[in-house]
This record gives sequence, C-alpha cells and structure tokens, in this order.
Amino acid sequence: MAEKTVRVGIIGTGFMGKAHSNAWLKVNKFFTPGATAVMKTACDVAEEPLKAFAANWGWEQTCTDWRKLVESKDIDLVDICTPNNTHAEIATAAAKAGKHILCEKPLAMSVAECEGMVKAVKKAGVQNLVSFSYRRVPAVALAKRIVEEGRLGRIFHVRAVYLQDWIIDPEFPLVWRLKKEIAGSGAHGDLNAHIIDMSRWLVGEIKSLVGMTETFIKERPELAEAGAGLSAAKAKGKGEVTVDDATLFLARFENGAVGTFEATRFAQGRKNGNRIEINGEKGSLVFAFERMNELELFSAEDPPHLQGFRTILATEPSEHAYISAWWPPGHIIGYEHTFINQAADILQAVAEDKPLQPDFADATKTQAVLDAVLKSAEEDKWIDV
Amino acid sequence: MAEKTVRVGIIGTGFMGKAHSNAWLKVNKFFTPGATAVMKTACDVAEEPLKAFAANWGWEQTCTDWRKLVESKDIDLVDICTPNNTHAEIATAAAKAGKHILCEKPLAMSVAECEGMVKAVKKAGVQNLVSFSYRRVPAVALAKRIVEEGRLGRIFHVRAVYLQDWIIDPEFPLVWRLKKEIAGSGAHGDLNAHIIDMSRWLVGEIKSLVGMTETFIKERPELAEAGAGLSAAKAKGKGEVTVDDATLFLARFENGAVGTFEATRFAQGRKNGNRIEINGEKGSLVFAFERMNELELFSAEDPPHLQGFRTILATEPSEHAYISAWWPPGHIIGYEHTFINQAADILQAVAEDKPLQPDFADATKTQAVLDAVLKSAEEDKWIDV
Amino acid sequence: MAEKTVRVGIIGTGFMGKAHSNAWLKVNKFFTPGATAVMKTACDVAEEPLKAFAANWGWEQTCTDWRKLVESKDIDLVDICTPNNTHAEIATAAAKAGKHILCEKPLAMSVAECEGMVKAVKKAGVQNLVSFSYRRVPAVALAKRIVEEGRLGRIFHVRAVYLQDWIIDPEFPLVWRLKKEIAGSGAHGDLNAHIIDMSRWLVGEIKSLVGMTETFIKERPELAEAGAGLSAAKAKGKGEVTVDDATLFLARFENGAVGTFEATRFAQGRKNGNRIEINGEKGSLVFAFERMNELELFSAEDPPHLQGFRTILATEPSEHAYISAWWPPGHIIGYEHTFINQAADILQAVAEDKPLQPDFADATKTQAVLDAVLKSAEEDKWIDV
Amino acid sequence: MAEKTVRVGIIGTGFMGKAHSNAWLKVNKFFTPGATAVMKTACDVAEEPLKAFAANWGWEQTCTDWRKLVESKDIDLVDICTPNNTHAEIATAAAKAGKHILCEKPLAMSVAECEGMVKAVKKAGVQNLVSFSYRRVPAVALAKRIVEEGRLGRIFHVRAVYLQDWIIDPEFPLVWRLKKEIAGSGAHGDLNAHIIDMSRWLVGEIKSLVGMTETFIKERPELAEAGAGLSAAKAKGKGEVTVDDATLFLARFENGAVGTFEATRFAQGRKNGNRIEINGEKGSLVFAFERMNELELFSAEDPPHLQGFRTILATEPSEHAYISAWWPPGHIIGYEHTFINQAADILQAVAEDKPLQPDFADATKTQAVLDAVLKSAEEDKWIDV
Repeated sequence: MAEKTVRVGIIGTGFMGKAHSNAWLKVNKFFTPGATAVMKTACDVAEEPLKAFAANWGWEQTCTDWRKLVESKDIDLVDICTPNNTHAEIATAAAKAGKHILCEKPLAMSVAECEGMVKAVKKAGVQNLVSFSYRRVPAVALAKRIVEEGRLGRIFHVRAVYLQDWIIDPEFPLVWRLKKEIAGSGAHGDLNAHIIDMSRWLVGEIKSLVGMTETFIKERPELAEAGAGLSAAKAKGKGEVTVDDATLFLARFENGAVGTFEATRFAQGRKNGNRIEINGEKGSLVFAFERMNELELFSAEDPPHLQGFRTILATEPSEHAYISAWWPPGHIIGYEHTFINQAADILQAVAEDKPLQPDFADATKTQAVLDAVLKSAEEDKWIDV
Repeated sequence: MAEKTVRVGIIGTGFMGKAHSNAWLKVNKFFTPGATAVMKTACDVAEEPLKAFAANWGWEQTCTDWRKLVESKDIDLVDICTPNNTHAEIATAAAKAGKHILCEKPLAMSVAECEGMVKAVKKAGVQNLVSFSYRRVPAVALAKRIVEEGRLGRIFHVRAVYLQDWIIDPEFPLVWRLKKEIAGSGAHGDLNAHIIDMSRWLVGEIKSLVGMTETFIKERPELAEAGAGLSAAKAKGKGEVTVDDATLFLARFENGAVGTFEATRFAQGRKNGNRIEINGEKGSLVFAFERMNELELFSAEDPPHLQGFRTILATEPSEHAYISAWWPPGHIIGYEHTFINQAADILQAVAEDKPLQPDFADATKTQAVLDAVLKSAEEDKWIDV
Repeated sequence: MAEKTVRVGIIGTGFMGKAHSNAWLKVNKFFTPGATAVMKTACDVAEEPLKAFAANWGWEQTCTDWRKLVESKDIDLVDICTPNNTHAEIATAAAKAGKHILCEKPLAMSVAECEGMVKAVKKAGVQNLVSFSYRRVPAVALAKRIVEEGRLGRIFHVRAVYLQDWIIDPEFPLVWRLKKEIAGSGAHGDLNAHIIDMSRWLVGEIKSLVGMTETFIKERPELAEAGAGLSAAKAKGKGEVTVDDATLFLARFENGAVGTFEATRFAQGRKNGNRIEINGEKGSLVFAFERMNELELFSAEDPPHLQGFRTILATEPSEHAYISAWWPPGHIIGYEHTFINQAADILQAVAEDKPLQPDFADATKTQAVLDAVLKSAEEDKWIDV
Repeated sequence: MAEKTVRVGIIGTGFMGKAHSNAWLKVNKFFTPGATAVMKTACDVAEEPLKAFAANWGWEQTCTDWRKLVESKDIDLVDICTPNNTHAEIATAAAKAGKHILCEKPLAMSVAECEGMVKAVKKAGVQNLVSFSYRRVPAVALAKRIVEEGRLGRIFHVRAVYLQDWIIDPEFPLVWRLKKEIAGSGAHGDLNAHIIDMSRWLVGEIKSLVGMTETFIKERPELAEAGAGLSAAKAKGKGEVTVDDATLFLARFENGAVGTFEATRFAQGRKNGNRIEINGEKGSLVFAFERMNELELFSAEDPPHLQGFRTILATEPSEHAYISAWWPPGHIIGYEHTFINQAADILQAVAEDKPLQPDFADATKTQAVLDAVLKSAEEDKWIDV
C-alpha cells in the first residue's frame, strides 16, 4: 500500500517561504513520518518572481490568487507564510475548505482574530499548527523533557530575552516590518512571540504583567516605493516608525513563578539572541539560540561537590529528539532544521490523525499575552492576561 | 618626612568586618596611596569574640561602645560594617566628630536617613565613601573607561541581574537578613543595590520605574535565639519572612535608555551571579562577577568581518586599573581585592584631600531608586524616582 | 541560453553518500554557481538498498558496477564516497574517462596511490577536488582570510586536535573502520587527515615530525558477518583491532612554526572535537567544530586595554563566505552545509573552468604527512616529510 | 597552652618573595592550621631594597648572607625564593641546619642536584615542600578528589599546555630568565614544570617521551647592566638567547595513558594559559588557570540524555578544599591564594609532624621528566624517564 501523501500549497514566497520550501523538500528524505509531502502549488502576488521561486524549489504549479489555492481539490495542507495581517483571512478560508494548516507566527493581529481562526479550524476538524519552530530545536525539546521529568521542581524564575541589532542605523529604511498596519508590532510580535511561546510551553501560563515599549529611532527614510529593495533610492524623505523597537515586561505566572521578558532590535552585537533561563527548586536551564545545539543544565541533585552548569550538546541520535534523522554526534544542525523537524511532526500528525502543538488555540494564548503587554504599555499599569 | 597616617576604627566584625580588616591589613603592602592605614580600634557588642577578632587581624585595641570609638581622638576614619539599620546613627555621629567615613552598602534604610547623613558629612567636610566595592573591580573600572571613551555611543539597553541561590531550602532558618526591621529589605537592598549603583555609574540616572517583589517561602523556622548560629536548635516553630526573596523592575533612564533589573536568592546554580549587559549604538559590554577578571566587549567599530564579543582579561599591569599593584598578566585576583583597591582609593583621597565616588550623596540616589521600587511594588504602578 | 548542467554520478551510499546527495539536491536552490547539478546515477553493490537510496534522494537511475558509471556518457562528474581502499582505482578510471571528480578524504591509502591519481587527473585535465569539506565552513574560510590579510603575522604555533569518543566501550564491535586492510588507519586517517589539511592550508607545509600511535582496546567482538549491522549477533568471538585508536605527533613547519597534533576516538565527552589554535606574532585564532559558526580571534593590534579573544559569529551575509546563500545573521548553519558549500564551489569551478583547492595534488601532500606519521611511529624517530 | 610557632626565614625578595610574604602574612588570619607563622627574617643580597621589602611586609629582621639565615637559631623554616641555580646549595645547607624547607619550583637545575637535596632532607628529617602551588587551587584539589573517587576510570589521554605571550616582541631584552646558566631552561622549567607536576599528581608517572625545543628569537638586546630594570638603557647590543622559547613533548604514562605537553612564551593572547585536559573511560576533566575557580567535568555516568561538560565553580565552603577559610559561594579567590593555602598546609604538616606533597623526592621525579625532555630534544629520539 502506498504511503499517504500530503499535497502542500504554500502562500508567501519571502524569507519564510524559502525556509518552508526547504523543509518540504527535505523532510521525507530524512524522516519517515508516515506521510509524504508533495510540493504542489506555490502562491504569491507577483507572477514572475513566483515562477522563478516555484521552479527553484520544485513546486509543481503556481497561482497568484490565494483563494483559488485554498479551495483547490489538489491541496491537502495550506502553508501560510504571508505577512501577519493576512493570516486570519487565509487560514479561515483554508479551514472552511477543509485543509490542514501550518501558519507562520504570530498567529494573527489580535486575540479577536485568533479566536475566529480557532473556531474555524475546530469546526473543520483540521490539523492546525503555528510555526513556533523553536519548539523543534532538539535542545529545546530536551528542555521540555527535563521539565516533564521533574528535574527542575517548582519554578521560581523565567528570564527571557530576544535580542537583535539590525536596525540600529538611523538610515536603515522604513521597511514594512516597521509599519504597524502591516506588522502589527515591531520587536514585540516578531521576537517576544517566540519567548512567550517557549516560556508558556516550558513553565506555564502567564497570569498578569506590566510592560513598556520604546521606539528609539522615531523617523526613518521612506523606501522609494513599496516593496522596493533596500538599495532603492531613498528620496521620499522620512516617515514615522509606528512600531516598537523594543518591548520589555515583567510577568507573574499562574504557578507562582515570576519572569522578565525583553525583545529588541537595538542590542549591538546580538544577532539572533533568543535566550531563556529558567530557575527551579531543583535545577536551572539555559537555552541560547546562537548555540542552538546546546542546552545548559544545573542540577541540585548532582553530588554537592560536583554541581555546576553543564553544557549538553543535544546531538545524540539515540538520546535527543529529531537527531536520529540527521548526523552523528557533534555534527551540529542549524536554523533551517527546525522547520524540517516541524514538517516531519505535522506530516506525522496528519498520518496518525493526532493533535499537534502549538495549535491555533494554544497560539491564541500567546497572542493574549502579546496583546496584554501592549495594553499595559499604553495604560502604564499591570494587566491580567 | 613621614607619610601621613590614617588611623582606622572599624565597627562591626562580621562578614564585612573580615573583608575590611583584610583590606586595611594589605593595602599599604601593595599600594602607595600617599597615606598609611593604621589598624587602631575594632568595635562590636560582644567582648569575647571582639577580642579574638582584633587579635587575629591586628587591631591595636577594642571597644564595645561605638560612640566612644567615633569620638576618640586617636581615630581618623570610621569604617562602618554593621547591619543596615545602624548606619545612619553611627555615620552621623562620626561626621559630627570630624571623622572620615567608609560605610557599607546600602547606605541606610531610606532616602530620608541618607539625606541626614549627607547633610552631616557635608557640614563636617569629611571624606565619605559607600562601599559599593564592585566599582573597584578592574574589569568594571575598564567598563567605565570604555563608556567614557565614547566606545558605546548612545545607550539603548541595560540588563542587570544579581542572582544567588542560598535560601531555596524551605528549612533554611529565619536569619536577620530575612527580617525587615533589621535588613530593611531582602534580595533588593542586598543585591539590587549593587546593580543599581553600577548602572547609574556606567549609564546614568534612572527616571522612572515599575517593580514587583516576591517572597516564595513565606514562613521559615525561627532560630532558637537571636544571633544564634544556624546549627542552633530550631525549636521555636516558624516565623514570617518579612522581606522579598526576589525583586524585579523595569526602568527608564534619563538619557532614554531602558533597563531590566532583577535580584533574587532563588536562582538555583547562580552563586554570586552579578551580571550586567549594556547595549549602545556603537558597542556592548557584559560583566559577570563570577568571572570578575573578565569584561566582554563588542565593538561595531571593528572591521565588519571581525566583529564579535571579545573577552578582555583585565589583568594587564600597564593597562588595567589597580593591577599594577598586584600580579603579572593572567594571574587573576579575587573578591577580596575589591576591598583592598577601595581602601587604596580612600587613603589616596584622604592624602590628597580629593573627593571620591560613590559618596553619600551619590549613594542617596541609589537609595532613592531602591525606595521607589518598593513603593512601585506596593502600589502596583510606575513611579518617578 | 540554458545554463550549463553537470550530470553527477555518485558511488557509495553510506554516511558520505547521504551527505553528498543532500548537497547535490540543495546546491542550486541556494547558490547560483553558474552550472546546475543533475542527480543522474547512484551506484553501490547491493541493489535493493541502492534502489531505495536513489528513490529517496531523487537519483534518476542506479547501477551496481562503478566501472559502467565512470564510463557512462551521461555522467560529467563522478562523486566518490566509497571506503578509502577503493578511491585510487575508481578515480583513475574516472579520470581516464574524462570525468570531473569529487573524492572523499583521505584521498587514498598511500602517497604512491595518490601520485597515480594525480597523474591521471592531470593528464585528463579534469576538475579534481578532495572533500576536505571543513575548508568550506564559513568560520574556517574567515580564518584563511584573516591569515591572508596578514593579521597573525609570523606563525609560531599550531595546536590541533580531533577528539571523539565513540569506541571507548570495549564491547563496541570490530567494524570495518577498525580494520587496517579496509580503512588504512584508524583515528589517524579519519581525523588527523582533517586537521593536517586545515593546518597546511592556514599555516603552510610540514617539514618534519615525530609521531606515536596507540590502540587502547586491542581486541573487540567480531561482527557476525561482514557488513552486518551493529545489532547483529556478535557470536564469532573476538578479533584484533589493526588500526590506531589514537595518533599523536609533533611537527616542524617549513616557515618555522611548531605544532602538536592529536586524533583520538577515546576522549570521553568530545563528540566531534575538531579544534585548531594558531598563534602568530600579531594575533591568534581558534576554531572548534562543535561551535562551527564561531571563530575566535585575538589581535595584538587592538588598543592595548581592549585586547582579548573575540568570538566572531561568522553568519553575516555581507561579510562571511557562503552565508549570503543561507539565512539572516545569527541563524546558524550546520555540518551538512559544508558539503553544500563545497558542491557550489565545484559547480562554479566546472562552469568557469578554474582550478579548485584542495585538489588531488594538494591532498597528496596531506597524505605524505599521514604516511610520515605512521612511519615515524613505527620507527620511533623523527621523519622528514 | 600557646600554639606552636614556626619562625620563617625567607631568601629572595623578587616576585616569589612577594607572593610568599603575602602568604605568611595572611595564613593565620584565615586558617587555623595548628601552628602560627612568625615572619622572622628576610634575606637578599642588596641591603637597601631588602630593608624596604622587610619593612613593607613586616619581616622582623634582615640579613644579606643566606648562610647566616639558614644556620640561625631563631629560624624554624627556610623559604627559598631565589633563582633556580641556587636552590640546591641553600636547601642542602638548610637541611643540615635542621630547618624545614619550602622551596620554589623547579626544585633544582638537574636530577643530580635534586637527589643531593633529597638525601639531605631525609637525613635531617625535616619537612620539605616544593612550591608547585597550583596543587592548592581548590578546583585542582577537586580534580584530584574526582580522580581518587574513581570518576574517570582508566585514563587514556592527558593534554596539557602552559601558554604565555610576554616575550614575543624581539626588542624584549635579554633578562636572566633567558640565560641558561641562571634559569636552567626557558619556558620548559618555568612552565612545563607545573603541568608535569599536575599530570603526575592526577594521572601517574611518565614512562617515556619525545620532545623538541624552539627558540624563535635567537638574539635580544642586552640589558645595560645585570639586574638593571627593563627600562634601563639597552646600549650593549644584542646577546644570544640560550634557553627555549617553547618546548613540546609527547609522553607515554606507566598506566598506559598518552599525553601531549607544551610550554611557550609565544602564544599571543594567552596570558597565563595553564590548561590541562584529562580523558578517562568514565569521564573527562578540564582545568584552565585563567578561570582557576572553575573545573570542567564530563561524566559518562550521568543519564545519557543529560551528559555534558559541566562547569563546577569550586567556591563552596562546605564542599571544596580551602574555601571554608575564605568567602561565600561565588566570591572567587585569585592567584595569590594558592600560596596562602600552601602556607596553611605546611604549617599544619609541621604542627602535626605529617608528611606533605610534593616533597623533594616527588619533585625530583618532575625534574627527571624535565631533564629527559631536554635530552630527547637534543638527541632527537624517544627517551625513557
């Protein structure tokens, strides 16, 4: 009997379109998830670059109208890689059409949008996964396992930052990510979304919080035309930055833990500085993305004279999640592998008809935290999530 | 001509009394600050242990009444190493008696107390230094120099934590440091005081903040009698912990930077985790006390293909503050050396009659931040400092 | 005009066959080297697994006789991924047939074999590249650039190790890699080959050396049958290990530098511990594969008070080799990417008809060092290379 | 009953004289070894600086003739801090006079000299300790404990380096340490001595070895006059460097382990880079002096998914050697503390009349290795120790 196939239609061919295409291309070459991905259709608005994109990655056909794609009979799974302000509409339509959905993060522009999406996928009974792909880093999966094994005990502290440095230059132009109407928010939705998701997954739900936002550079050169490359003439003068450059907040978790969170694009020298530290009664964990194959663990259950933070290289095929599909010990994997691991997981979920996390309902909780932070920042006070 | 001598009287013979005695003992053997410390009088309440302490460290005489010490004609400098709730009274009396003062941190129990102390030392015209001794770590002094050289440019972020783990065990007893009436606060005054001082020194004044406190273990075994050792019978049942186990806050600086601060005694595996990171337009710095001989620097002015965080081992006699008094490159110094460096600085200040920082006025600003955090935590809102 | 195509035939479908197939699959999706790889034919001895392998990776056809493959008119480039003792015969035949050749390392079993291969490729005028793929790590390419920019000055020291730990268990069976007649040597040819290549590339030629070998576990369980999996019954008793578990040597370079080299499979905790440190008059470099995206640099030309080893995260698209094909800064790549980078280089070399390093002639010099070490170890004396 | 006193006479007031004086000054203030050091007499050849030195450190009296000191009735222990070529004569005389002896390393200029010294101290029955003070680093003492607890199992590898960089500049003058007649050897006796001692202590005796030496800068500016400071006029032209700048060797241990050793003063950026790694069947250890409060441990007995190198901060008063005398956890100690810990050990040995290691007999074995390396380098062959 031939293995089940999952015909994928991808919408959006930018940075995430590239990362996801690579994942669909490779997933069945390394994993045997019980279903085979077929790279069926790629969709974007501009026809010429779309055709080149599809040819490069091996998508069988193209389509410039996402509505046609989501309704097409030869698509089983819709992969949404478009800007944040389009997720809700596309996902809802896809759900109505009975398609499984993989959606880039953050799930949508607001909790209200998310809730509509959750309703749609529940009604349709389709697989729905939000691409918080860092959950698929083997070292992060190991962190989850350590927590579940009870090795940290009661959690006291979460200390999470996501630090980048790519817009410090005041002459960096006003790209769409710096416009609220398209991006929703700045560093917050882009970066805090990840560390909120990871904290919720590893520690539990956030109960209340107080936050602040800051925009260090308030005006930037307009791009000559929408969508033009960064090298385009910047003759149109300056425009207002309408999103946050940095967003910080304090949080109380339902289980009594307390936390600090910080996202910024102004931390000189930090390139992709997603770092989380968790301190529990019996142990502590540290994960930092730039060394994503490593997890630091302190265990108060080690012999007293031998306690210390150990660096676990999470590359053992027999011990660490996903690694048996990859390379021998110490032969590290990279950023792109998180997407391939994720693709394997969703194929398996489809094949076995089993639920998968973080689904839309789960991501709605992350969105609720994101929303609460902005509200708190606006109102200068503590907010219950 | 004989060098000036500075006759020191120390009050308090606990942990800090030990660290300061060691400093007075060694300072003139390594430094030539222009004045010589004479270890004149040691003072504490219990006569027997005091005599043993004085004999061990070479204090010439003892005295169980601090008032006599501060008024004695054979004392030039009073070194206050007593619990926080006694600083104000002692320092004020010492100032009135015309003595130079070195006072342990935090300066006092409140800004109001501090202001009285400032008034007293200003009127007396005496040297007054608060023992934020981490400013005397060569790597921290190097951080200051780097900031002053303009190598960071405009500062965007401060990220400061002071993490310890020594009271996680719920059976750890209710020592005086966990009682508000003596200690004033818990992790906050003990640990945040240091990172606030360091941030103010390196970055500037804090304008407003929002904070929270948490006491994870709300009751602990009472010690059998006040002042009894930890091994004493713990038969008295449980008593309430009246200070914070952890205090966190967000801050806005006057120069536009934003910051996160966190002090805790519940970070498993962090022994003396005083760590501060500063991100500026042109560079970033990281200092972590457990590797106190090192400073990390990222410079965006390095050639683009060679940029990265470098670890400066601040042990070069010809380059780094204080080191010419110590050992060859790479032969590291430790915690106690911060006190000896500090002793050298205050002897030099006395010898040259020059002001020294952080003086009482400066430490009052740190106290104002400490107070504002607790007020903010109580009132659940942002506070202007 | 259609771009040039390079029809690839791969021989050998083990670990390296997998790594190379992945490279051919992906190279043109990320790079535009001026020629397109076509995955034409896969070859191995066992037909069934071969067919599965080819189907998985998308090789168009299969073939169980490597001679047919190398002589086939529809192959432009032969990719040799077979055990070391077959390289010479296959490569020589491929050269005679006018094919370009990519050959796994080490090039052959002896310098004599290598020299025959060099002769063949020179006569044929074909591209010939040995897969010392670590040269294609961006951080290693950066090291080369730093050396060429003169930032180290005269080199004094090389300190290279390649440490693994996978055969410490005495019950680990007698696999082919532990048999001299197939593998040629043990840790030496497998691991020292890499660090010799890297040292020669970055520092220069080795003039003389003295080496030693050690086999810690002299007998191991025989596999039930040749080629059987590790889980097969191990009923045949013990057999002799005929290769080195560890090989160490001291070296003098032609330019006056001195070096230590060490390869072992008995360094507990070191999974893929390929580490090289180079000390020069003006600076030092450190590369360690387990953190392959990083390069450490010390520059004595930095301001004296700011000198220190900096960690360069070699992931800047605009600055670091190969990265513009991959992901944004800080989004690290992994082991497999070295092979894809290498595939891009050889496609470009074919497209532009330009020579590429390390070619067979260059790898012969590495082989000469490998041979000299074993001779030295056997004769217990210094040997000129 | 008054505690036993040990009246110390120190010979040599240079770098080591300073480090030892500091140790005698402090030892009884922090430790209670059962005997009290009395700083009796300091001895050196130049009277004026000697008097200043004695006054600074509190030596009761001075003496410019070491023979008088060693024979004096008011001295119990002779502390030898003079250049290497004087150790044998002084120590032998001190032993004859019945004094306990602490002698700086390396013990002497040759095994022959050492053997005479051993004979003398054995005959006299006095305490005799060689100042390989790195054995008194708490992290190194922990390494010893870990080995003795059997946590490494059979040892396979030792990898030891001692890297410095202070004479790379060709204009650095021809100080006495670069003259064979005074120093015996260069980096070898100065640095390899330490790592040989540490390896012997932690792993066992070296059976055979092959070594090489290199002098990168063969001539240097003569100092204007012997003993003149580095800033003295360098008008005398160039003189020959007669010691090694770097010495490397391979070794076989009696227990079957193999090792690499390297000492150099030409490793740019390495200030005091004393680093040793040991790989055993069940675990591995790494110690690096520039982070001397830390010990790295890998244990193959940890749960398989949690294995990794852990960094033990060896500053726990209740767990780690010597620390209970010092400061709270995480409040690190420095280079100078190794000498104070050592002073405590020898006072205790005297008080309890117990033997102490490394004694002269033990240090003779280190000297035998040092001598064998130079012989091997001269004869270009393997040597049995």
